[in-house]
Amino acid sequence: MSEIIPHWLTKQASLAPNDTALELENGNCLTFIELKDKSQSFAKRLAWQGIGKESKVGIFSNNCIEMVIAIHALSYLGAVGVFFNIRLTEKELNFQIEDAEVSLILVADCLENQLMDMSFAPQILSFSEVRTLDEENVQLALEIALDDAFTIMYTSGTTGNPKGVVHTYGNHWWSATGSALNIGIHATDKWLAVLPLFHIGGLSILLKSVIYGMPVYLLEKFDGKKVHHAIMNRGVTIASVVTVMLHRLIDLLEEQQYPDTFRCMLLGGGPAPRSMLEKSKMKQIPVFQSYGMTETSSQIVTLGPNDALRKLGSAGKPLFPAQLRIIDQGHDGVGEIVVKGPMVTKGYYKNEQATESSIQNSWLSTGDLGQLDDEGFLYVVDRRKDLIISGGENIYPSEIESVLSAMYGVKEVGVTGVEDSQWGRVPYAFIVLDDESVSEVDILQYASENLAKYKVPRKINFVSGLPRNASNKLLRNKLCDLI
Amino acid sequence: MSEIIPHWLTKQASLAPNDTALELENGNCLTFIELKDKSQSFAKRLAWQGIGKESKVGIFSNNCIEMVIAIHALSYLGAVGVFFNIRLTEKELNFQIEDAEVSLILVADCLENQLMDMSFAPQILSFSEVRTLDEENVQLALEIALDDAFTIMYTSGTTGNPKGVVHTYGNHWWSATGSALNIGIHATDKWLAVLPLFHIGGLSILLKSVIYGMPVYLLEKFDGKKVHHAIMNRGVTIASVVTVMLHRLIDLLEEQQYPDTFRCMLLGGGPAPRSMLEKSKMKQIPVFQSYGMTETSSQIVTLGPNDALRKLGSAGKPLFPAQLRIIDQGHDGVGEIVVKGPMVTKGYYKNEQATESSIQNSWLSTGDLGQLDDEGFLYVVDRRKDLIISGGENIYPSEIESVLSAMYGVKEVGVTGVEDSQWGRVPYAFIVLDDESVSEVDILQYASENLAKYKVPRKINFVSGLPRNASNKLLRNKLCDLI
Repeated sequence: MSEIIPHWLTKQASLAPNDTALELENGNCLTFIELKDKSQSFAKRLAWQGIGKESKVGIFSNNCIEMVIAIHALSYLGAVGVFFNIRLTEKELNFQIEDAEVSLILVADCLENQLMDMSFAPQILSFSEVRTLDEENVQLALEIALDDAFTIMYTSGTTGNPKGVVHTYGNHWWSATGSALNIGIHATDKWLAVLPLFHIGGLSILLKSVIYGMPVYLLEKFDGKKVHHAIMNRGVTIASVVTVMLHRLIDLLEEQQYPDTFRCMLLGGGPAPRSMLEKSKMKQIPVFQSYGMTETSSQIVTLGPNDALRKLGSAGKPLFPAQLRIIDQGHDGVGEIVVKGPMVTKGYYKNEQATESSIQNSWLSTGDLGQLDDEGFLYVVDRRKDLIISGGENIYPSEIESVLSAMYGVKEVGVTGVEDSQWGRVPYAFIVLDDESVSEVDILQYASENLAKYKVPRKINFVSGLPRNASNKLLRNKLCDLI
Repeated sequence: MSEIIPHWLTKQASLAPNDTALELENGNCLTFIELKDKSQSFAKRLAWQGIGKESKVGIFSNNCIEMVIAIHALSYLGAVGVFFNIRLTEKELNFQIEDAEVSLILVADCLENQLMDMSFAPQILSFSEVRTLDEENVQLALEIALDDAFTIMYTSGTTGNPKGVVHTYGNHWWSATGSALNIGIHATDKWLAVLPLFHIGGLSILLKSVIYGMPVYLLEKFDGKKVHHAIMNRGVTIASVVTVMLHRLIDLLEEQQYPDTFRCMLLGGGPAPRSMLEKSKMKQIPVFQSYGMTETSSQIVTLGPNDALRKLGSAGKPLFPAQLRIIDQGHDGVGEIVVKGPMVTKGYYKNEQATESSIQNSWLSTGDLGQLDDEGFLYVVDRRKDLIISGGENIYPSEIESVLSAMYGVKEVGVTGVEDSQWGRVPYAFIVLDDESVSEVDILQYASENLAKYKVPRKINFVSGLPRNASNKLLRNKLCDLI
């Protein structure tokens, strides 16, 4: 039976009306009661436009207060938000719009121009335009049924078209409470949201805010100095980042230390190089490694504070309500990671085939490779699709990246497999340097000293930057475009 | 659809094997891995005795480690625990045993004698006897389905036989997470369990321990000095108490203060006199008033830290996942309290009539009277069954008790209604004195000065103690037995 809870924003606005829900760089704040009132008003204007129960509404926006209001507005109507990556091309957008049966697209005012030359079937309204609409006198949701769908986000699989991951309210709820049981809830918490809200890592912070009654410090996008400032001076106690962000933050920290009240740097978006984790340890940054994906409504595995230092490099253990297994293990204990729990999506939007092939008996096949140590800690070895099989040996790009990242003069590394007539595939490395005096010979020598011969990159390509997606994840399949 | 989570004790034993689960007065501790191992072993011995999925197993025990082990053991078998109040008579016990279809009774070793002269149909085994049984090689539960029943506790209604409140795992889960969203979760928390574990207020602490990964400081029964010591010297940060306990603790505190780390004195078991709350405020005791009952799996309304001082006397607002309404309001805004939420029982064991009359459309009629102030804070006016209607005026016993409790020389007060030919019913007061020099005349004069005439007790009875149940709740319907 679907559990029913009061509407979460209305509830928080009743419990803590004057507490801060959102805080911006410029010092502007929104309380929970203000956020509720604005979201309800926005909902009534959308209702005037015909949006209601189960309508699919696209959102094309950078991080801003209006986007937060729009998201909550949809929940008051029982509508479903379809979150677009703002870097998508017209073609990619149109695929998602059609696939998700989007009937209206909401766009941030500052991004309207970006869509100007594109052509879409559904109507497009900017946030400002919505605010000029009349308010329809509709009954807004008083309760939330946890089995109802709330959001859809597209992910690319290893093959075929992107698939729309459907999140129910319950998926988000369990993600938030599962995280709370892991890192606790303090009355003084303030969570930094710098990841895009159109990705699950960003959106999940917003929903934790409403469920915990916690302020979110919202940044439009990643800017190292702004994040550094927020942690140092604005009372941020928890921040969600990806590897490349942490790299920059460590540099900015120099000889300083974060305040004692800063209690969690939640690190997602792929395996982190050991050298970075060691630097973080040295600088006493409380890094919590984590592992998750859109399908698991953000992190599903996290390394808790008790083990953060003892298990460097591990993603930790599955959250309290979650389960994890390694299946099809090889002789080295490495196999596919499968997970289960109430935060795991029930499936892909109108795509039974993809759903059935990914989810069996409530267990989600992640497509990622990992192993468990004898205490049950997960080590994510690699994304399966990135696995390089070379002469019968398995090569994990992240291992090579981790090793080369630790080398003096090397700033960032990406490794991918390239066709080879003799060995099947061989690893190529793409390197951004800190120090231009480092040569290919230096790197190959360092690699030979630290890696088995078959793992040494066949070619070193010096580049000025690595291809990353909107949440800064390394896109290994785009590396070869740099050659 | 029923949500599935990993077995909560197995999970906690995996996440934090060596953290303390239980701590005793004598310094003995049990870690989560030890508690898991002992509970699983106990489960296998019970399985040898034929206990399995949905078996009803009675538990007759005071607070002790063996009881905790037995409770978790039942969850490994999918069996349902029926919790007996150890003050029950043979007749009362047999009613519950038959009604709940109990097939085996587990009894604490030290209480075996108490059952010796009674006669019961099911077999009785002491905890020690179970430990002499062989272990059956059964598959223990790896997961918990939240819709499954876990515990049954009997409550007396205003009329008729006691009814068996069924709690699912989900009821307990939502109670624990609802409380966490209210008072937070700190890594340093240690919760004092002095309320009987056979009542929901005690049991809920145990389950929070497993869900939060938090140590419980377990006391066999209330002893003011031991509780005082635990808070002052043993690192207890949260304690659940009822009014009469807090009264004693305030006395013991004298000129001292509790450590700053003691962050929550959760007060349940009926309305608290204003004078006690004011004393607590003066002594900086962080009292959280609360309201709840067996049917709501412990507290469902709590006064949060932000409002504790501003709203003295209020029980607060419903927990995040809960809803509350006042129905059938009188001209004074007082009406019956009805509540809804995933921690509310789905019904009484095999008693559809009672279930249907108490729960309509998921809303539970509490039978209690209350009102909301203009900010939505609940003031529990009285238990409806205790309402004294006198000459058309409503008299709430708790109001009179609260007034007289504040008088010098008065230690405890109980008030109830007694038949009266002229007025219908009139209030009688039962008073325990601190100072024997206080006279009936003194009290009546004080009452007249502080209460409308119709509320002044018609008779003052000096007594040496008040009738209370095992969780120290005042039993107003037993007061007249003292005359």
